[in-house]
Amino acid sequence: MLTSKTVQQFLDETASSSPAPGGGSVSALAAALGAALTSMVCRLTIGKKKYADVQTELEDVLRQSEEYRQRFTALIDEDTQAFNKVMAAFALPKDSDELKRRRDAAIQEATKKATLVPLKLMEVCEQALQLAKVVAEKGNVNSVSDAGVAAKILMAGCEGAYLNVRINLANLTDESFSAQTFQQADGIARRVTTTTNEVVTVVQTKI
Amino acid sequence: MLTSKTVQQFLDETASSSPAPGGGSVSALAAALGAALTSMVCRLTIGKKKYADVQTELEDVLRQSEEYRQRFTALIDEDTQAFNKVMAAFALPKDSDELKRRRDAAIQEATKKATLVPLKLMEVCEQALQLAKVVAEKGNVNSVSDAGVAAKILMAGCEGAYLNVRINLANLTDESFSAQTFQQADGIARRVTTTTNEVVTVVQTKI
Repeated sequence: MLTSKTVQQFLDETASSSPAPGGGSVSALAAALGAALTSMVCRLTIGKKKYADVQTELEDVLRQSEEYRQRFTALIDEDTQAFNKVMAAFALPKDSDELKRRRDAAIQEATKKATLVPLKLMEVCEQALQLAKVVAEKGNVNSVSDAGVAAKILMAGCEGAYLNVRINLANLTDESFSAQTFQQADGIARRVTTTTNEVVTVVQTKI
Repeated sequence: MLTSKTVQQFLDETASSSPAPGGGSVSALAAALGAALTSMVCRLTIGKKKYADVQTELEDVLRQSEEYRQRFTALIDEDTQAFNKVMAAFALPKDSDELKRRRDAAIQEATKKATLVPLKLMEVCEQALQLAKVVAEKGNVNSVSDAGVAAKILMAGCEGAYLNVRINLANLTDESFSAQTFQQADGIARRVTTTTNEVVTVVQTKI
């Protein structure tokens, strides 16, 4: 598992000449860091007298945020695995027409899967961002900048995933799948930008 | 050192009820991931026949990118240390006017330092982003989405640092320092947004 490496090792392996872990796994890690910051602000709010009226709501936010963090953490590995399967398909033999046909089919199938992993990441980022918004609005004001960083880094994870969806779609021949996935990803990317800007406005008025 | 922890431990400690590591260290880690991806694209380009004409330039980019990555990695710890010093100053005794005066001075000094660490992070992010732009324009086109993710995550690191500069400035009484630092941070934030948009445009035309 990539998350059992040290941070230094993860950085070194990312920087290495091996294409994995690459932008997909890094985007998932960014999102996990955003969810972790959201959880931190919840924990720095819950139990404080001044915030007693939002305690139950933030306990619920914390539960969801930790669930999303776990999901993001799993996606770090899932992205690298999906990428490795695409590479494995490209490495299949192509010495006859039949082998070529099989190789092409394997590439298409692996690439579809490698598109769906960052699409899932985008979906969870959008949900996690709603939680960052709640903690920016209602969480401990001393940690409001952390809520802002959470939103910014969740947006970066989402936009990084979007670029990975796009580059994989470019290699797919199934036009109906491509059109549908593009539309879905594009919608999430737009909504995430809007929500992030809303969070940053809240943060800046509170600083 | 925070980078000698596993990725899972780093995430867990961020999510914990301890305020450090918080948004500042997470922003520095985001930036380090951006620099790591920039280095990866360099390494996936250098030595390839098709890119022989940019080899020398990308070797130079790689050298700088790895330097910035090291700087970002150091800033992960520096931010947490600076934050802990602010907390230590707040914990000083205030049982007499003289002690109060000393405590206030210590808080001001520690907060200034805690402002300069994210400001440095912003400065290095701006420089590192120029490298992400070069690799997006000239690097291996198969890795162009990674160059895009590098830019997005460097921007998130920079904007996260900006929020940390802002929240620390709000606690400072030295108006001349505050005005100058605000102006400097604001300028970097604007230029970084522009450059990131330029990188994303390059990436999207190449996908």
